[in-house]
Amino acid sequence: ADAGAMARARQRQAQLTKPAGALGDLEELSVRLAGVFGHERPDPRGAAVLVAAGDHGVAAEGVSAYPPEVTPAMVANFLADTPAGPGGAAVSALARTLGAEVYVLDAGVNAGLPDHPALTRAARRRGTHNLRREAAMTREETLALILAGAALAERAIDAGADFVVPGEMGIGNTTPAAALTARLLGLDPAEVTGRGTGVDDERLAHKVDVVRGALARTNVTDPLDVLAEFGGFEIAAMLGMMLATAARRRAVVLDGFVEGSAALVGVALAPALRDFLFPAGECAERGHAAQLSHLGLNPMFHLGLRLGEGTGGVLALPLLRGAAATLREMRTFEEAAVPDG
Amino acid sequence: ADAGAMARARQRQAQLTKPAGALGDLEELSVRLAGVFGHERPDPRGAAVLVAAGDHGVAAEGVSAYPPEVTPAMVANFLADTPAGPGGAAVSALARTLGAEVYVLDAGVNAGLPDHPALTRAARRRGTHNLRREAAMTREETLALILAGAALAERAIDAGADFVVPGEMGIGNTTPAAALTARLLGLDPAEVTGRGTGVDDERLAHKVDVVRGALARTNVTDPLDVLAEFGGFEIAAMLGMMLATAARRRAVVLDGFVEGSAALVGVALAPALRDFLFPAGECAERGHAAQLSHLGLNPMFHLGLRLGEGTGGVLALPLLRGAAATLREMRTFEEAAVPDG
Repeated sequence: ADAGAMARARQRQAQLTKPAGALGDLEELSVRLAGVFGHERPDPRGAAVLVAAGDHGVAAEGVSAYPPEVTPAMVANFLADTPAGPGGAAVSALARTLGAEVYVLDAGVNAGLPDHPALTRAARRRGTHNLRREAAMTREETLALILAGAALAERAIDAGADFVVPGEMGIGNTTPAAALTARLLGLDPAEVTGRGTGVDDERLAHKVDVVRGALARTNVTDPLDVLAEFGGFEIAAMLGMMLATAARRRAVVLDGFVEGSAALVGVALAPALRDFLFPAGECAERGHAAQLSHLGLNPMFHLGLRLGEGTGGVLALPLLRGAAATLREMRTFEEAAVPDG
Repeated sequence: ADAGAMARARQRQAQLTKPAGALGDLEELSVRLAGVFGHERPDPRGAAVLVAAGDHGVAAEGVSAYPPEVTPAMVANFLADTPAGPGGAAVSALARTLGAEVYVLDAGVNAGLPDHPALTRAARRRGTHNLRREAAMTREETLALILAGAALAERAIDAGADFVVPGEMGIGNTTPAAALTARLLGLDPAEVTGRGTGVDDERLAHKVDVVRGALARTNVTDPLDVLAEFGGFEIAAMLGMMLATAARRRAVVLDGFVEGSAALVGVALAPALRDFLFPAGECAERGHAAQLSHLGLNPMFHLGLRLGEGTGGVLALPLLRGAAATLREMRTFEEAAVPDG
């Protein structure tokens, strides 16, 4: 990020017509946006949510409350024609209402998907291998999906997106996210494995065992090896989106726990990525707090979301637009001739 | 609120294409909006922030970090022509960016204010009496300001506002807000008196003494008597805005501590008002949490705002629009042919 722009933004925030610090966390968010966009009066415009979908071999272990058939059915839902417009999922409704374009990426869904203008195909295989038993992806597949995610982010940025929200759909994907988080942060699986779509106590204990079994299989620590062993196609794609967005000096709005696992791989590869990440809400999934603590970033809201799809990231867009607007459009005490204390 | 619409909305939320409860607090917000707007697929459109400004006799006690001259200077700032558009204050920048009309009400500012199309005049007097020594307002003045606030809300609603954000500007006004909160909730002044614009420890202790002195002066408990004795012109106006908005079955988005003190008077007068209140963020001002606890309502975010002006309320608008959009635009499992668990 641009340290000079951040310093100028911090100085400007202190001169705006309000008591010092009265805009709370919005002030630091505005300064970080100044760093991303390289100007003390940042003017971010468009936004895009890029929903990567993939299936998971580990779903066969019974780690989810939903069957794998839900993944392609939800992709169809993202792309459906509805009376309100394109898409009938939560992310569709939120993106339409709050001003974000929706792009869908087939990162490796276990179904044939019909052509659709909003669908980009990048599947190398219809679902990962079962990470409990073997590497989820090859290193070559992992790199291919990272590049596919990066290419989609580039396309969205070229079409006007200054905010990129990586999102995901993939039945079973909180299991790879937990495995990635445990290995990358050196935490016990029980500390970072949650209920996902809503499994009961018994199945949660089983899910912890599955993650523990996967981690016991190999002691890789190289971030790309960790991603290939324990990750997922949509997680690799989201990593690519994040890296490309940061490289293009745009803001990555970070949704929940699965997105967070991609971000952990990202900062392990390129620590400067952190400056471009803006966590949306505190996600109800166990392990999300540990991710944010590692990133050293605070969430903007605490609505208890645990849906994914990028929904939380889309909800956070107006808060970031608002933060930028205070720096850009408020007058200083001097400009407004308001007595300052 | 419309209990039938809420019941239908709750049933609909349970059928939408997402795991039950995965949208967290957004689901209950959507159900409450269904109750306000009387439809299980609520479609709220416009929004208005109504900034009431008034001065306070108690400012002479040295309870604020800023001089009273800031009140009219900030009103001028709300109304200023700037390169970005009308208004150079935080609420101006946020409202412009997030889609809310700004209305300004002179509820009793200690200055002559020039005519402006966005300024409505309702001042009966240039500032309240010093509530430490005597009643801040007469009962007649109190009622007049309630009616003026109600009339402005009616006007905003007639112009298309489905969300009304009462906002305020008034140097010294966290002192009356603390006195109102202490009396209406039966709490000690030290529990509900905060730093306002940012006073130091010594001045905070003095501010608590001022509130304590005011409360010792009279033991009135009738809500309108309490408001007249300890309130402020802009607080009375915000009460009127809230009552009129609820009467017109629109949503009141509740900003911070001063707005909250008006809401406490409101629910004491008309308990059904609660159903129409949507607290925005948890405000950093001490005493706000006690207000929300009494109202039995949760804030949407925790950004540590303590500015007022309606800024938090404006930031919350997209979250409410998003909540309504999920109910209105998402498809059900049946409509989308997605397997449900």
